[in-house]
Amino acid sequence: MFAEIIAIGDELLIGQTIDTNSAWIGEQLSLMGIQVHQTCSITDEEAHIIDALNDATKRAQVVIITGGLGPTKDDLTKHTLCKYFDTELVLDTDILKRLEGLYKKYDVPFNAVNEEQALLPKDCITLPNERGTASGMWFEKDDTVYISLPGVPYEMRGILQKEGFPRLAKHFDTPTLVHKTVRTMGAAESKIAKIIEDWAESLNQYSLKLAYLPSPGAVRLRISGEASADANIDLEKIVQQKVDELPALIGEYIYGYEKETIEEVVGNLLIAQGKTLGTAESCTGGSISRLLTRLSGSSAYFKGGIVSYANDVKINILNVSTEDIEEHGAVSQQVVEQMAANARELLQTDYTIATSGVAGPTGGSEEKPVGTVWIAVASKTDIRSKKLTLPYDNRERNILVSANYALGFLRTEFLLTSSRKL
Amino acid sequence: MFAEIIAIGDELLIGQTIDTNSAWIGEQLSLMGIQVHQTCSITDEEAHIIDALNDATKRAQVVIITGGLGPTKDDLTKHTLCKYFDTELVLDTDILKRLEGLYKKYDVPFNAVNEEQALLPKDCITLPNERGTASGMWFEKDDTVYISLPGVPYEMRGILQKEGFPRLAKHFDTPTLVHKTVRTMGAAESKIAKIIEDWAESLNQYSLKLAYLPSPGAVRLRISGEASADANIDLEKIVQQKVDELPALIGEYIYGYEKETIEEVVGNLLIAQGKTLGTAESCTGGSISRLLTRLSGSSAYFKGGIVSYANDVKINILNVSTEDIEEHGAVSQQVVEQMAANARELLQTDYTIATSGVAGPTGGSEEKPVGTVWIAVASKTDIRSKKLTLPYDNRERNILVSANYALGFLRTEFLLTSSRKL
Repeated sequence: MFAEIIAIGDELLIGQTIDTNSAWIGEQLSLMGIQVHQTCSITDEEAHIIDALNDATKRAQVVIITGGLGPTKDDLTKHTLCKYFDTELVLDTDILKRLEGLYKKYDVPFNAVNEEQALLPKDCITLPNERGTASGMWFEKDDTVYISLPGVPYEMRGILQKEGFPRLAKHFDTPTLVHKTVRTMGAAESKIAKIIEDWAESLNQYSLKLAYLPSPGAVRLRISGEASADANIDLEKIVQQKVDELPALIGEYIYGYEKETIEEVVGNLLIAQGKTLGTAESCTGGSISRLLTRLSGSSAYFKGGIVSYANDVKINILNVSTEDIEEHGAVSQQVVEQMAANARELLQTDYTIATSGVAGPTGGSEEKPVGTVWIAVASKTDIRSKKLTLPYDNRERNILVSANYALGFLRTEFLLTSSRKL
Repeated sequence: MFAEIIAIGDELLIGQTIDTNSAWIGEQLSLMGIQVHQTCSITDEEAHIIDALNDATKRAQVVIITGGLGPTKDDLTKHTLCKYFDTELVLDTDILKRLEGLYKKYDVPFNAVNEEQALLPKDCITLPNERGTASGMWFEKDDTVYISLPGVPYEMRGILQKEGFPRLAKHFDTPTLVHKTVRTMGAAESKIAKIIEDWAESLNQYSLKLAYLPSPGAVRLRISGEASADANIDLEKIVQQKVDELPALIGEYIYGYEKETIEEVVGNLLIAQGKTLGTAESCTGGSISRLLTRLSGSSAYFKGGIVSYANDVKINILNVSTEDIEEHGAVSQQVVEQMAANARELLQTDYTIATSGVAGPTGGSEEKPVGTVWIAVASKTDIRSKKLTLPYDNRERNILVSANYALGFLRTEFLLTSSRKL
């Protein structure tokens, strides 16, 4: 079964807005077993919308339309859909009540323009929008389903998750699909592939599929299974069993599952163990503490950090030895370990992460090329450090990967000591 | 004149990659006066590529194709284009020489697979790729121009900027267009529009156009002018003159021009004045120092910072008064000013920026709702502070806007003292 996505809006064509909706919808549909054949972005013009609907109808059984539902644009999409499906706008009293309640809640006067949002095509199923005022719409014509959604990503996602996807699964009786994601860090795709070769082979027994999704410094593994709606197997259990076999093979590289980020995983471990964390950052320049504090609730374990960008901040605040900086350079094991240990005392935390490296694009040397980064973690009784040699000449990438690796190093070297296998 | 963009790649349709290329190309073409009518993303299949080319040809005089040129995909796009334009692949010896040189430079052996990248359609103009191995291709058929480009954004942009756009301008004899961007912070679009009402009216004299491009906490103004190639006017000068009139009207909100970011502007002012900067961050959690250190060369003025997330870090390291925290709370003028002043002494910088606020989504109160942020800047002789009341309930947005505003506050209150108008 094929789907197409039509994104409506001049702002997409002049590059003012990047269309992230189509990628998200494409991912979700493909996880449901519905293949997206084509997506397009078009202008806010009636004739263009109708052409695009005609074209998509020729190729797809599911057509998802985003955008053009805002009241400022005179609801062009809604009127055009009425024309296309030969119907008319009528007042949806349920939606009207919901909108009135919403405006009352925020103490905003409700007027005629707002009431427009409760006018919806007669021959459609209204898909309520719990996150905004523009409702979703579900049309059926011949063998094709059309879903029209607002362009605001948060609203569009809410409607599809709550209404659109479950209805599609039911309407088309799509097979049951189970996907599980395993997140790894510290090993290239090729290295992981070699270690889990036999395991990957064993997936064939249940026709499970494996996908590698690489990103800088990390590789996600996605294990997928499919079963017809009437198959008498517990697919969820089968996929989970295969996932559970991975830690014995690549446990040292696995840091999380599904949507977890390394900072969430580290945060949860710190909470579970009742420990606190601080940072001492040079080349990462605040990126580690930014990642940590981006999470609401991080104050439960993150106390703070020192960004010791200049050497005299390393010396004066972090008490790093001037002689060691002169002898070994700021990017060295000696310096990064002192940064970690001394920051821990200063911040009075259980652990401290430190970084010092050459993020580039300038500042590299033959001995310490761009991408050379020392990371260290200190506890009350121990200091461990590691030298990274990153292959990027991109400053932002070196910083981000170093920050992620440093958090991963804390996890493997200290937070997992009970089950550590290195 | 209309353009269409065809992005080729299954990874776009399953949401593994977000297509940012089409938005960038759309923006650049619209700045050249070429209107993008439609963009689409399609599968890596020959029949699908040919259908998409046929459809685009019906509607556009410029068709830009991205993706499908990597050697791992067997150059499907290249072969399909040969079929579509009824031509064949031949060895391009100039490109071959360039590739051999590139591989020699990086000391990588050159083999038959690499040589494939020098096989190019006979009836096309090769557009050299200075940033990679897949060349761009320029075809002409009837009245339409087709440009095929690699999908890697950095390579695609390089080829278009160096070869594609200048050739398009020449081929279609496009009018001269001049665009200038003025970047503002601290005033809503409606406020700026009211202040510059007469000025905006005066643009009509030269048929100049004004566009407002808002983003969280900032508004860009884009002033555009158009002249036919043979018009005897200095359009560049006319647009610049109008831009030069803006500081007298909204000077306090203008922080930069064209692509400048606030951290770049602040960095350049610090360099020009030979001053240094430090940070003391609570609610922004390292984001200000991250913005500053993201720039290569920032070590010339940025010495470091303290992320004092926990109150005891504010007290123990930054010497903030315990009594003031208890009496006024951590999110208060008293605390943020002490953070700034004491961090400056500790870091031994000329200026220090401090923040303390409620980023949300939790932690707000009636007195200090989510979005309440105190910012302060200290110099050796002065401390200034300001309370922000941001309208967002989005944590990341509150953090980013606070960080930007804090940098902007340093700029207006201290770095511009000579020309300040507040």
